[in-house]
Amino acid sequence: MRQTREVRLARWPAGAPIAEDFEIADVALPELGAGDVLVRNIWMSVDPYMRGRMYPDGAYNTPYQLGHVLDGGAIGEVLDSHSPALQPGDLVDNFLGWREAFVAPASMLRKLPATSMAPQSYLGAMGMPGLTAYGGLLEIGKPSAGETVFVSGAAGAVGSLVAQIAKNLGCTVIASVGTPEKADWLKARGVDHVINYKSVADLPTALYQAAPEGIDIYFDNVGGDHLEAAIHAAKRNARICGCGMISQYGQLGVSAAPRNLFMLYSKTIRLEGFTVAQFLGPVRRAFLRDMETWIAEGRIQYEETIVEGLDKAPAAFIALFSGGNTGKMLVKLA
Amino acid sequence: MRQTREVRLARWPAGAPIAEDFEIADVALPELGAGDVLVRNIWMSVDPYMRGRMYPDGAYNTPYQLGHVLDGGAIGEVLDSHSPALQPGDLVDNFLGWREAFVAPASMLRKLPATSMAPQSYLGAMGMPGLTAYGGLLEIGKPSAGETVFVSGAAGAVGSLVAQIAKNLGCTVIASVGTPEKADWLKARGVDHVINYKSVADLPTALYQAAPEGIDIYFDNVGGDHLEAAIHAAKRNARICGCGMISQYGQLGVSAAPRNLFMLYSKTIRLEGFTVAQFLGPVRRAFLRDMETWIAEGRIQYEETIVEGLDKAPAAFIALFSGGNTGKMLVKLA
Repeated sequence: MRQTREVRLARWPAGAPIAEDFEIADVALPELGAGDVLVRNIWMSVDPYMRGRMYPDGAYNTPYQLGHVLDGGAIGEVLDSHSPALQPGDLVDNFLGWREAFVAPASMLRKLPATSMAPQSYLGAMGMPGLTAYGGLLEIGKPSAGETVFVSGAAGAVGSLVAQIAKNLGCTVIASVGTPEKADWLKARGVDHVINYKSVADLPTALYQAAPEGIDIYFDNVGGDHLEAAIHAAKRNARICGCGMISQYGQLGVSAAPRNLFMLYSKTIRLEGFTVAQFLGPVRRAFLRDMETWIAEGRIQYEETIVEGLDKAPAAFIALFSGGNTGKMLVKLA
Repeated sequence: MRQTREVRLARWPAGAPIAEDFEIADVALPELGAGDVLVRNIWMSVDPYMRGRMYPDGAYNTPYQLGHVLDGGAIGEVLDSHSPALQPGDLVDNFLGWREAFVAPASMLRKLPATSMAPQSYLGAMGMPGLTAYGGLLEIGKPSAGETVFVSGAAGAVGSLVAQIAKNLGCTVIASVGTPEKADWLKARGVDHVINYKSVADLPTALYQAAPEGIDIYFDNVGGDHLEAAIHAAKRNARICGCGMISQYGQLGVSAAPRNLFMLYSKTIRLEGFTVAQFLGPVRRAFLRDMETWIAEGRIQYEETIVEGLDKAPAAFIALFSGGNTGKMLVKLA
């Protein structure tokens, strides 16, 4: 394997990303140096947060570079190794997705643990989205049994786990989604109230009907009108877990909502942004232990939306912004 | 003293409050029952947060009632007492301002401590605004020496104390105000950078020039464009102390700013609303001890804007929303 293909950022998206924002290029693979391995990616992850890295001024710390390959989570198979740490055939968790193969130092890669979990679960429930859901809900939201948790984007990779984790912790859960099929999936998981925000007359009323006494925690994947409705419904001393704003990524700087931010002050609400990178050490260990148990017991279930081939990766990413996935969006590369 | 006068809310303000929203009424005082005292108010406090109680649907928990007397902090003198707890001549801290006199159970009142402080300081630096500044900055902002603190409304009763407390804690302080006189007052207190937001071309640029590396804490008294600029300037893991939004009280539901809320998530910022009511017990004791020491040492100074007579109280309140005060706005009633 001497050649690979990679997905590059061709230009900065102007709003929601479109096909012309990406290009696929052929690239020669370098020779392996001491300590290097050659990896063929099998699965790659497609995640909403990547949109935040597609601004030249860096809404996130590390914007992508125009004309350069993207990156993201992937699971690959070692094909050749100049390192004693990895053998051909080993499966490795890496952050060098959006390309079919790569040469990198073995020290940059993590061998998948020996479990009965499907390899691609380490890009989803057992990986970054899982830790985002677990750490965000527990460490930022600090839920107690009996409290009411509202989660938006609740059929997504993160939201679908937040809803189920909150149920496992004894909370009443309200979830919002955009299709009847997603709603049915969540109801079948035992979620107490599911709102299809596209079919209700207005979100604040739907939220009031689900939780007349208000909500204690809002796990925000959507921003905008959802955030405004959640602030309106929030009880005193509520917490908002600031995970994502998928409604806003295409239109930073123009949203009218939320227009009720003052309620954060008058109701002494804590709105706290977080990223998965802060949940290391003991939080991550507790996550891996709890999540493996819950999955084994059937108390966490996850869906995957799978497309095949690197050529489809840009379309898979674009589809995230119109709700084109249930659960984790994955590209199968090999 | 058989009669008193009181200020009532005549109608809900439509935006910034105006004179017609208030009316002054003559009221007969009741007879004193067992345990009651008759108090003549000497000083009353005029505070921005009251605007938040002037919405029928209760942006705060307890809206005022149309046609009824307002309330707020006051210092009064006991004229007659049917309680062993208080004697004529005692000065009492009470929450029955906006009236010249009242009859109330002695148990609702707190005798002023025996200190060298001016009685009205217990409506300002030693009272609710002082505890708001101290508790909000220390408990919500959690400043460390060497960090950069930005405070808006920095010539107001709360903001002027936040700026000085932050200096006393070893922070670099940036303050925003709306007049050159207010700016001079803060510079004379040792504040590092003072921005007159009405005279700079744009606030984000002024803030960048004052703190090219960003701010660690923003103490928000203003909301709107100030909050947007602070979010823009915030470092990763910054904290925003959500105290007030005086720019917004007249126009809840229409502000375009802040339009960069997503940065709360991408920079993992904590925005936390608070009210003074949560700072009881040990925080309040530490506040009283520290503030008395700082005032005695000249390390906290405070200004007062004083108007005389109950008739002027509505105008004093209205003036808060156009920056008509430096430091604590007080009405002298007797």
